[in-house]
Amino acid sequence: MEDNSYVVKMNGNGVNENSSLNGVNGKGLNENGIQHKTVKGSVYKSKQKSRRQRWNIRPSEMSINTLNPIRAIVDGMRLTPNPEKPMIALSIGDPTVFGNLPTDEKVIQALKDAIDSHKYNGYAPSVGYQKSRDVVANFYSCPEAPLEAEDVVLTSGCSQAIDLAITVLCNPGDNILIPCPGFSLYKTLAVSLGIQVKLYNLLGLCLYLQPEKSWEIDLQHMESLIDDRTTCLIINNPSNPCGSVYSKEHLKNVLSVASKNCIPILADEIYGDMVFPGCKYQSMASLSSDVPILACGGLAKRWLVPGWRMGWILIHDRNQIFGKEIRQGLVKLSQRILGACTVVQGAIESILNNTPQEFYYRTLSFLKSNSEICFSELSTVPGLTPVLPAGAMYLMVGIEMKHFPEFQNDVQFTEHLVTEQSVFCLPATAFEYPNYFRIVVTVPEEMMVEACARIREFCQRHYRPCSQDSNELDQ
Amino acid sequence: MEDNSYVVKMNGNGVNENSSLNGVNGKGLNENGIQHKTVKGSVYKSKQKSRRQRWNIRPSEMSINTLNPIRAIVDGMRLTPNPEKPMIALSIGDPTVFGNLPTDEKVIQALKDAIDSHKYNGYAPSVGYQKSRDVVANFYSCPEAPLEAEDVVLTSGCSQAIDLAITVLCNPGDNILIPCPGFSLYKTLAVSLGIQVKLYNLLGLCLYLQPEKSWEIDLQHMESLIDDRTTCLIINNPSNPCGSVYSKEHLKNVLSVASKNCIPILADEIYGDMVFPGCKYQSMASLSSDVPILACGGLAKRWLVPGWRMGWILIHDRNQIFGKEIRQGLVKLSQRILGACTVVQGAIESILNNTPQEFYYRTLSFLKSNSEICFSELSTVPGLTPVLPAGAMYLMVGIEMKHFPEFQNDVQFTEHLVTEQSVFCLPATAFEYPNYFRIVVTVPEEMMVEACARIREFCQRHYRPCSQDSNELDQ
Repeated sequence: MEDNSYVVKMNGNGVNENSSLNGVNGKGLNENGIQHKTVKGSVYKSKQKSRRQRWNIRPSEMSINTLNPIRAIVDGMRLTPNPEKPMIALSIGDPTVFGNLPTDEKVIQALKDAIDSHKYNGYAPSVGYQKSRDVVANFYSCPEAPLEAEDVVLTSGCSQAIDLAITVLCNPGDNILIPCPGFSLYKTLAVSLGIQVKLYNLLGLCLYLQPEKSWEIDLQHMESLIDDRTTCLIINNPSNPCGSVYSKEHLKNVLSVASKNCIPILADEIYGDMVFPGCKYQSMASLSSDVPILACGGLAKRWLVPGWRMGWILIHDRNQIFGKEIRQGLVKLSQRILGACTVVQGAIESILNNTPQEFYYRTLSFLKSNSEICFSELSTVPGLTPVLPAGAMYLMVGIEMKHFPEFQNDVQFTEHLVTEQSVFCLPATAFEYPNYFRIVVTVPEEMMVEACARIREFCQRHYRPCSQDSNELDQ
Repeated sequence: MEDNSYVVKMNGNGVNENSSLNGVNGKGLNENGIQHKTVKGSVYKSKQKSRRQRWNIRPSEMSINTLNPIRAIVDGMRLTPNPEKPMIALSIGDPTVFGNLPTDEKVIQALKDAIDSHKYNGYAPSVGYQKSRDVVANFYSCPEAPLEAEDVVLTSGCSQAIDLAITVLCNPGDNILIPCPGFSLYKTLAVSLGIQVKLYNLLGLCLYLQPEKSWEIDLQHMESLIDDRTTCLIINNPSNPCGSVYSKEHLKNVLSVASKNCIPILADEIYGDMVFPGCKYQSMASLSSDVPILACGGLAKRWLVPGWRMGWILIHDRNQIFGKEIRQGLVKLSQRILGACTVVQGAIESILNNTPQEFYYRTLSFLKSNSEICFSELSTVPGLTPVLPAGAMYLMVGIEMKHFPEFQNDVQFTEHLVTEQSVFCLPATAFEYPNYFRIVVTVPEEMMVEACARIREFCQRHYRPCSQDSNELDQ
């Protein structure tokens, strides 16, 4: 009875075959229903043949193909700290976890003011409030790369900015070039969308003696990867996980490759301006004369509020190469789930314009000092080769694996470092770059000092010198 | 010179063919680089043949296929208000725009407390803080459909909840069933992902005399649409744009169809509990014994803060039909861009547990009263047939088009209503349901009264009685 109680229902939406306004389902104008005159029973053919006989719900290909290498690696590790030593996590790319790097009080006040105004509880346009876009445009505008509000799309964090940028530029089957070592999200997003990734090499330790050239892109390798399905070149500067900051000259060389091959750039500049005192940051767009650039950024790192999910895309397209279509594509994609929390959008004017310079300087001085402590401590540890960063909040450390024959790779090395010393560093296999580990330099100084001492103790215990002529790299 | 300045660079990342840890790009272990011993120049074959010779950047298929019917229709309308009458927009599904429906002061205070705690500036897990998920689970748990924290995924607004739910259940080429008339986002999201939509009819005005049955689903029609690629049935209750609230019996009948055909349900319950005094709301999940349900909701409507982008998916799966895989799929998809602003997540415990009942009651009493005013005013307007809602914040009005021969359809009708009376109602063609318009009942009462008077004046001016035996539906 219950199963069939719906079968004979009246259909008020009479079908008018002559209608020019038929909906997708062929349902037509509905004068009949409105007139309460013609009511007809609805009789539809049943398609029993194709009906499912049992439950069989499978997750979509996209969800299956959404892979998070950091989770995959970390979840596979046995992370049992030494109960006699308190855990020190140098693995988390979140500057807020230890409480030693609070955001500025003006930033907090800006958010509270936005709440108190009661003006920011409703929907914003999907690309963000005009006023907020205007503020971001003004903040990042420079004579070489001017920006207006229409060049800005506000997003739910820099992750959504990167997602929209990749999604608007690439179709399934296309490929994008991403750095190696590099932030894992590019691959996660691209692969989930059926877009192929090709990893270009960053030049690591051979440039050790020229730290200002650390982790530059192997441009010849990068260019060799370009083919006719390459639709986007991702450049991350300053870099996660490397902490490197590219010189103006190097960025110009990158732009030359892009220009020569007519490939647009997605510039992940979430660490933009986060360079240590004495070093200079240059945005990609300020150096480009022709290459169109989608620059992705946000409040997360520089203002130390990653949970607020306030990101943006800056559209740089002085030669109208993206044109109206890419802009419209971004607007359309932004309408799928809308963007950033309106209260944070309401606070952004005050955040960008009123945060005192001392706040930025204090943060960066701390990160520099901590990096130097870490670098100098680990430089004298046998078997380790730290690379001095110039910005962001990370430091990469090479492991000379042949001197640690007990461990097969960086994953085992860092796993045992937890077991013995309760120090966790992310193995760089998570960045597709084996035999390194990444240290996050946002932890309190005393914690950094203690962690380095424990890493030294661990290495001293497990280090095995090689015989003079040893060539057994695979031992 | 500059173009080639990068060609001869040293490559510190020597390739070791024997490595078992080769990265995706074939780059191997890097002992060489670390030892600073072997440095070799990198030489890569250039693929000049496939290099692009000119810029040709096209927006992706996905961005092209992301269609917003409301924008498409509204942007195509000539909306020039009568300068002698102030504009009244009854079109915007945002309860905050007129300031007459503020959220509760406790909700505002909860957000400020979360900010002041300084505990919610960092990253949350991609599915949300455990504590916040726990609070949502407890709030919506009932004996018939118990929930725990692991059954909750927090999202950036209900839009992302719906996006994740569709994305985890459907592959390109699959189809989903969506209501007609219905909220346009389902189609926007699905089509952008290559998923087909099939529209099932809601039964409109023939049930006029039984308002509690208004807009029930034509279940036979719905079932006739199911085929072996149907992977999701979307039920929106209470409904946008209809304002209808389904009875327990009708929901059970819907569940029977889903159960018989083994199709999971996406229950869009963003207006859950938003039913007028005297009416009862029942969640889909509380009635399901076997059908697995992803129930999507959020703070937007009930708490009157749509801009805060706080949504959730409640996973109901008592028979383990979704199983671990759908849950894992949702977790993986949530890692693409992360979810809701952490400050709002931090406030949710207090918002859900401390908002006074009077607030909900006051809001719903107002919406009911405004609906009744609108319904009763428009019921006596010649040529219009309003349908009394029982919940949400909308009211649908049928237009007997044959009595308005000057206008071809609801779009022209509402366009001229703006030109003459400065009243804007959304033509229901935006919901694939021509010859209706939707009124948002959140506007201040005096504005509603004034708008109804103007609509009456407009209709009286344009109404043409039909001859007794007229059957010319297409005039």
